[in-house]
Parts: sequence; C-alpha cells; structure tokens
Amino acid sequence: MNKKKQDLRIIPLGGVGEIGKNMTVIEYGDEMVLIDCGLIFPRDEMLGVDYVLPDVTYVEKNVDKLKGVVITHGHEDHIGSVPYFMPKFQVPFYAPKFANALIRTKLEEHGLNDNLLNDVKAGDKFKVGIFTFEAIKVSHSIEDALGYAIHTPQGVIVHTGDFKIDFTPTDGKVIDLAKFASLGEKGVLALMADSTNAQTSGYTMSESIVGESFENHFKKANGRIIIATFASNVYRLQQVVDAAKRFNRKICFTGRSMLRVTEIAKDMGLLNIDEKMIVEINEFKNYPEKKIVLVTTGSQGETMAGLTRMANGEHARIKITDSDTVIISATPIPGNERGVADVINMLHKRGAHVINEGNADVHVSGHACQEELKIIHSLVKPKYFIPVHGEYKHLYKHAELAEDLGLKRKNIFVPEIGVPIELNRSKGQLGKKVPSGRILIDGLGIGDVGNIVLKDRKLLSQDGLFVAVVTIDKQTCSLVSGPEIISRGFVYVKESEELMKGAKQVVIDVVADCEAKKISEWSVLKPRVKRELRNYLYNKTQRSPMILPVIIEI
Amino acid sequence: MNKKKQDLRIIPLGGVGEIGKNMTVIEYGDEMVLIDCGLIFPRDEMLGVDYVLPDVTYVEKNVDKLKGVVITHGHEDHIGSVPYFMPKFQVPFYAPKFANALIRTKLEEHGLNDNLLNDVKAGDKFKVGIFTFEAIKVSHSIEDALGYAIHTPQGVIVHTGDFKIDFTPTDGKVIDLAKFASLGEKGVLALMADSTNAQTSGYTMSESIVGESFENHFKKANGRIIIATFASNVYRLQQVVDAAKRFNRKICFTGRSMLRVTEIAKDMGLLNIDEKMIVEINEFKNYPEKKIVLVTTGSQGETMAGLTRMANGEHARIKITDSDTVIISATPIPGNERGVADVINMLHKRGAHVINEGNADVHVSGHACQEELKIIHSLVKPKYFIPVHGEYKHLYKHAELAEDLGLKRKNIFVPEIGVPIELNRSKGQLGKKVPSGRILIDGLGIGDVGNIVLKDRKLLSQDGLFVAVVTIDKQTCSLVSGPEIISRGFVYVKESEELMKGAKQVVIDVVADCEAKKISEWSVLKPRVKRELRNYLYNKTQRSPMILPVIIEI
Repeated sequence: MNKKKQDLRIIPLGGVGEIGKNMTVIEYGDEMVLIDCGLIFPRDEMLGVDYVLPDVTYVEKNVDKLKGVVITHGHEDHIGSVPYFMPKFQVPFYAPKFANALIRTKLEEHGLNDNLLNDVKAGDKFKVGIFTFEAIKVSHSIEDALGYAIHTPQGVIVHTGDFKIDFTPTDGKVIDLAKFASLGEKGVLALMADSTNAQTSGYTMSESIVGESFENHFKKANGRIIIATFASNVYRLQQVVDAAKRFNRKICFTGRSMLRVTEIAKDMGLLNIDEKMIVEINEFKNYPEKKIVLVTTGSQGETMAGLTRMANGEHARIKITDSDTVIISATPIPGNERGVADVINMLHKRGAHVINEGNADVHVSGHACQEELKIIHSLVKPKYFIPVHGEYKHLYKHAELAEDLGLKRKNIFVPEIGVPIELNRSKGQLGKKVPSGRILIDGLGIGDVGNIVLKDRKLLSQDGLFVAVVTIDKQTCSLVSGPEIISRGFVYVKESEELMKGAKQVVIDVVADCEAKKISEWSVLKPRVKRELRNYLYNKTQRSPMILPVIIEI
Repeated sequence: MNKKKQDLRIIPLGGVGEIGKNMTVIEYGDEMVLIDCGLIFPRDEMLGVDYVLPDVTYVEKNVDKLKGVVITHGHEDHIGSVPYFMPKFQVPFYAPKFANALIRTKLEEHGLNDNLLNDVKAGDKFKVGIFTFEAIKVSHSIEDALGYAIHTPQGVIVHTGDFKIDFTPTDGKVIDLAKFASLGEKGVLALMADSTNAQTSGYTMSESIVGESFENHFKKANGRIIIATFASNVYRLQQVVDAAKRFNRKICFTGRSMLRVTEIAKDMGLLNIDEKMIVEINEFKNYPEKKIVLVTTGSQGETMAGLTRMANGEHARIKITDSDTVIISATPIPGNERGVADVINMLHKRGAHVINEGNADVHVSGHACQEELKIIHSLVKPKYFIPVHGEYKHLYKHAELAEDLGLKRKNIFVPEIGVPIELNRSKGQLGKKVPSGRILIDGLGIGDVGNIVLKDRKLLSQDGLFVAVVTIDKQTCSLVSGPEIISRGFVYVKESEELMKGAKQVVIDVVADCEAKKISEWSVLKPRVKRELRNYLYNKTQRSPMILPVIIEI
C-alpha cells in the first residue's frame, strides 16, 4: 500500500456515561468491527419500557464495512442486544464459550439460529477483516471473561473488558498479566479500560474470600439457608455448592435464570455438583431445615424474583420464618437500593436472620479498584487512554488516575456516545458526532416508544386522565347527547360526584356558547373545551390530568 | 384515686418500619398526647402524590381525649403534617422555638393562625393533661432539637427524639447526658429511641469536623465554590459562613427554602453573618470567581432544586464551568441515590470539581451510631425498650443491641404502626390494632387518592391509553359514526397507521356482529369491544394499554 495511512476511529455507541449497553465501533478505512453488543435496563422514568439498546444507525448505514462483532463476556450489558442486531448485521460473532451458551438461549427465544456464533478462548488469535484479535484472560464475576489486544494498521488497542485482578480465583485461572506486560513492552497505541470502580481506592477482594465467609455463616445457621445471588456468577454458585457439601446440606436452585444458568454450567463442566445433592423445592419437607440450602434470584429486589416474593409472603412454596438465614450475596446496582432495602426490611419483619454486604463479606465486586487499574496502566503503558464502562464520575476519576500516572492530558479522551476518537501514531483528536443514542424496547416494539410516548405516560402517571365526550349536531351545533365523562387515575370518582357534575356543566356551557355564537368549527370547540376543563379541574383540585375532549358530529 | 391503675398505651401512628411521618400516641385512661406530627415524601410508586401523612382516624375518634401535641424538632418528618391536623385537633402544640418558626411559615401558607403554638426550651417542664413533660437538650442536625421525659401515672417514658451525641457541637450546647442519667437513676419505665443509624458501628462524627473539611476545600478552590446542603441545618450554614469569612468570600443563598430558613435563622440570632458579606446572584459579575460562595438547595438531586438545574444546564443564572468547586454536603436519603448520582455525573461532565461524601468529610449524620445508643441505654436503664424512627432493619438491629446490653427480649417491643404497646410496672403486652395507615396528599385532595387511583395511574404509566368511541343507533344497533380512536402513551401514532386501522376494524366487526345477533345491550357490547381490542393490541404489540370503549347511543 502506498496510500497514506488513515486514522483509526474508535466510536463508543454505549457504555460510556452509563453502566450498561456496552458497544464500541473500531473503524479503519472501510473496515469496521464492533466490541460488545449489550443492553441496559430502563431507568424509572422510562415508564413501561422493558430494555434499552444502543442506537446502531451508524453501523446499519455502514453495514457493508462491518466484518464482525467481538464479545468480551456474557453479562447482559455486553450480550443483551445480540438477538436484536444479529439479523441486521449478518456477520460472524466471536465470544467466549460461556457467553455463547447464554447468547444461544436468547437466540432460541427470538427464533434465531446460532450459525454466526464462534467460540473464542483466552490465547486465541483471530482475524476480523483487517483487525487481528488476541484474547486475553481476565478475572471478572462471570466465567470466561476476556480482554482483547486488537492489532490495527495504526498500532495495538488493548481493551480490558470488564475486569479485576484476582490472584486467588476459585478456579485457579489467574488474569494473564504477562500478556498485558508483553503488549506494553512492544508498544500499545491505546488502552480502553473498565472504570466501574475507578472511584474506589485499594484493591477488590478475591472471590475466594466469599467462600470463607459462607463457611462461617453456614457454621452458625440452625435452620434453612437461603442465598440470593446473580445467576451468571458460577464461581459464586460453586462456592455455595462447596459450602453446602461441607455442611452436608441439600441444595435447591430456584428462579428461571438460576435454573437455566446452572443447567448450562453443569453441562459445560463449570459447576461441579453431585446430582444427589440437588433437591426440588417441593421435596423440602423430607429434610430437616438445617439440611437445606436454597439458591434463588432476587438479589436486586426485582419485583417478580424469588427472594422478593418470599420477603413479601407471596412465594407459593417458601414461607420465611425466624429460623431462616438469608444471605444476599450481591450489591444493589445504583437505582435498586430502595428495592433491596425493602426486601431486607420485610425479611427482618418475618423474623429471618439477614446477612448482606452491610454486615458481612458475602459479596465482592467484579471490577478493578484504583490499585488494580494502576497495575494495568503501568504494564500496558499506552500512548492514548480511553476510560470506558462507567458513569461520567467514574470516567473522570479514571482519567485523573491516568494523568497521575504520568500520561499527558491531551492523550486522554473521556469518551462520549457517538463521538469518534480519531487516533494515529502521532496525534489524537475528536471527530464529528455520528447518529447515536438509545432504542427503547417495549413489548414487541423496537424504537416505537420515543419521547412523545414517554411524556404522555409521565403525564398520565401523575394526575391520570379525564375524557369528555359530546355528540353535537353538525348543522345547529347543538348538543345531541352527552357530555359523557370518563376519568381514571384522577380522583376517586364515587366520592367526587359534585366535581363531575361541575365538569359536565363546564362542557355544556362551552357548547352552548359556541352554538349561540354560531361557531361550528371543531378546531375551535375542542381546544376551548379542553382549556375550560383544565382551568375548572385545576381550581377545584390543583391537579392537571390529561384532558381528552372527544367531539362526535352527527 | 382508689381506682385500679390502667395500663399506659403507646401507639405509633408513623415513623416505625419507615423513616418519616413520625407520630406516636401516648394514652392513659381518657387522656392522650401526641408526640410529633410529621409527613413522609412519597415513594416512586405513589405516582403523582405530593406528600404522605399518617392516618389519624384513631386520634380523630378520640379527639376529646387529646390534650396536646408535643414536637421534638423542626424536620419535615416531625412537623410536616401540623397544618393538616391542627385545625382538626384544636389543642395546644408544644415545640422548640426554631421548629415553631418553621411551622409558622407552613401555617401561613395554609391560611392558619399560630394561636395554638407554644415555645418549649431545654429544661422546661410543662403539663399536658395528666402527663408532665420535661424537655431535654439533644444534639441533632437542626437547631433546638429536644428529647422528652414524660411523667405518667405508670412511670417515666424517655423519648430521645432524633439525636446524636456531639461533645463538640458548633454552638457549644452539648447534649444533656446528666439529665438522661438522673432519670435513669430514679427509674424509667420505657425508652423510645432513634434507630436510624442502629446498623452503623462506632460513633457519629461531630458537626465541627465538617468545618475543618470546608476550610481545606476553600483553601484549594481557585474559582467559585457552590455548596448544596439541607436548608434546615443552620449549624452547617454557619460553618459555610465562617469559612467564607475566613477566605474573604462573599456569600449568596439561593433556593426558596434556603432563603426562607436563613431569614428565620438570622432573625432568631442563630445564623451570625455580616450583612455586607451577602450578595445577590445577579451581583456575581462584580466579583472575581474566587471571591464567591453560593449556597443552594438540591443536595438530594430534587428535580426542581438549584443544584440539579445547574447540573442540567437549566439554571437561569449559574452556568457550571471547569473552575467551579461543588461541595455536596449531605448524604442521599434512601431512594434518592440515582438522582444524586445523576447530578454528580452532569457536574463532572461540565468540568466541575465535585466533592461529596464519597471523597471527603463534608457531611456528618445527625443520628446516633451504635456506641452512642449504648451510652443512652446504659444511662436510662429502662424497664421496657421501644426502638423508633427507623425501617424494620434498623428497629431489629436496635432491639438486638438492647438485648446485648442485658435487657430481656420480652421487655423489648419492636413496634408496628397502629399496634398499641400496653405497659405497666409489672408487665407489657401488645394490644389490638387501631385504625392506622397513610393518607396521600395530591394537590388539594387529602386522602382522595387511594389504591384504585394509584393502580390506574400505574397502568396508564406502563403502556398508556387506548380510547375507542363509537356512536350507534339505539334501535338498529348499527354504527352511526366512528369508531374514533385516541391513544396516548401507547405507540407513536404517526408510525402506527396499520395498527390503528386494524383496531378500527376490530371495533367495526364487533358492532356488526352484535347488530347481526340483535344484541343491543350496552353491557354486552362494551366488554366485548374491550376484550377484542385488548387481544388484538396485545398480539400486535405485546403491550396492554388501558382500554376505554365509549359507546354513544343515538
């Protein structure tokens, strides 16, 4: 090639300024690869929304450039949007084996086949178009998590994925620091690294300390032990199994995702458990309480999950009593604090002994704290640094950390969704923003819930709805029937007869006035009915329901 | 009296199993007194609700027994429902002076006079019917906080109010531990004590360390300093003023409650500030940035508050820049974590240097931790203990702490709203639950938003609304006009023409079928339209909007 080398473009489409829906475009000339394909769960204000995906307009527009999608690990924020985008992209997807197993269950639910999936394991080297990927073993709270070295015409990008440094992992497979070191020795153009815990000083504890903690609590428990944790953390599940075995307790897994993941993990040989240890929930009566461990979903206080239903007394088979020990082996994800606290309160109220992060080491994070980040930075010694996977406060703190380690501010890019970071060996700059944002999924609808729909839901949720229907004579403009009034979520109608009578009179008066003035235009009558009703209702109640006047002309 | 002594009844109507709307009935024979009269802010799921009050049905039914209301301090969760209940109760209200000043502004807003208010100060002794109250100085995050010793025919109740033990308070007025000790020496029937921090080991730090921390941050700041804190914590405001003075900065208070409280505090001589130091927000341009401190509301990420609007770039006068230092001198109240994190992220994005509890000692709690609770328990040495002011997890932990200190389990009552605790010198027991619960305030409506209205709001918020209006001939049952379809918050209508056309056809088909079968009953037609539409829309969208069929008969 005698053509001048082009800039490498790194375009985050999600996962920066937020924890979730990770997706990054890496682009060189007319070739493109995507790292991760995640979703994020909707925030409270996204009323009725089920999931939120990254807006991939830019990828769709350039789909002929796209050579592949490379996944770091199997958490929802890295794989969740695969079934939505795979049919559109039609390129090879590369992911670690355990992630692919989880992706496969999603594809099945969407009626898709898995032809495009390719397994990758630590140490593998593979080409995606012009890019050569090397998979690097990292520690994280899920099996098979990988970082990648991405060899490009402008140099090497090191992407850590989500990671921590665990020298005593439960499966003995330690993060491949030597690989990060050797890449650093040879020269790295850019480092993209997990920022989730960038505000936390020190080190993240090893997964194995959770096992020790389980051991202590199992020793003390005199009744059933109920453990809620993330289904995808098989390391954690294995430690529960090991503790159960040591204390001669039977084990029962409950909750849809828990059952699905344990089946997969057993099949793959990741979860080692003697089948004789496993009992069904309806066999509990055959065993003394102190011979049972129940492993359930609901560690985030999710409304429909196992632990939440137990806490609320709504679980068909498990009634919490004062002999139960409940271990919540997780930290509330930001936004879930209230829900988790509710569950804990209700468990206390039913007399259970509750153990959670507030009072014991029953959980460790899967993300690197400051000292671990410093290790990676010092080994990789990149020319440019791009903090990823974090809210702004995390990204800025991570940028500050890189600066403290000696990197020049101008070589650090705190990324924004849709803004390309254009790099070459001598300089880096920001490009022009590409189409980007979020796609809301509600039921079968992909992207048909936008700001207008959300605004209406918000309005309806605050003061409800007030419908006034009148039938008028097209010729004379006189009232033929009605007004009929329907309200929902506004006031308790049975106790508001006066108010409803008054509202009807308001409508009658407006129609009569229009009739007298010979105003027959629907376009005048309708807004007038709306305005007069709004004023009347606000004065009487200081509430502003959504008002829908319906005028039928005969 | 030769009559046999009756049991003393303690009935919490709020503030137990929750942090907020504190209110407790203390009843002996035919006399009754209320401690505190608070409100709680609605939870997210209480859509559109402004405030939540305790249900006082029991008090209203026995209002002739009520001799007075005694307030511990001026926080909303202790005084917020005064303007709602004072007109109904018409008895003397006793409160510390600063609380009364805050209550007075509420009464004014409600068009009520303050005839029933009485000032109380630490050391005062006063009678409320058969009960004699002694006011005891405690430390807390608001001026003038009191605990009470309540002398009753069955013995003394000690109620701590909200408290901490601060040996170095900024105003030099230390908690009156000697009084608690002397009450304990003479014998105390029951202790009711603040449980908010019962899960936290150690001691709560003194308010004065915040001043030292401010000093450090003021020293480093090169631009404007913006501090968000609770308006009611005048100690905190005084420390801001003192730091501003030391570093020769002008000060500006902004936000409605901040302005109101600082006026009151200045008038009462609680906030000492040279008027020359105070500037208006629009005078900022006359001063260098490093000569300014702005004190604002919004420490909880409240949508409309000052700091939130600054973070979102919506504040008319203050644009955040990278020379600003923002200090958030507060902890998020459970449930507000997401909102506060959003504000911090946006401030970071605008380049501000943000200091909050995560990275500095810019806030201390107003509530006692475990070691402080042990001090009070050990001094008061009650026969019975009732943990109050806390969610269940706090109450249970506090009960455990009392047990660890030697109190018998049967003498500890973890209270529930509405369940009387009946005590005498020889035994304690639970009585029959009285009417109790919550009253929702929405606009002018008090209690007219109940479960049905909230359920409708919830439903409307999830998938919106679908109204179908048809006009039919009363005789022939044939369609005269319509169907007209109105939807809000359901789908983006402009892109859903097919769906709407299909829905219209569903209605037309149902009407035609009914016409053919000569079914003219409105009570048959309406549910059929609803059912068919629900099935059609769910199949097409997997959403379940609220469906409102409107049938007009001509």
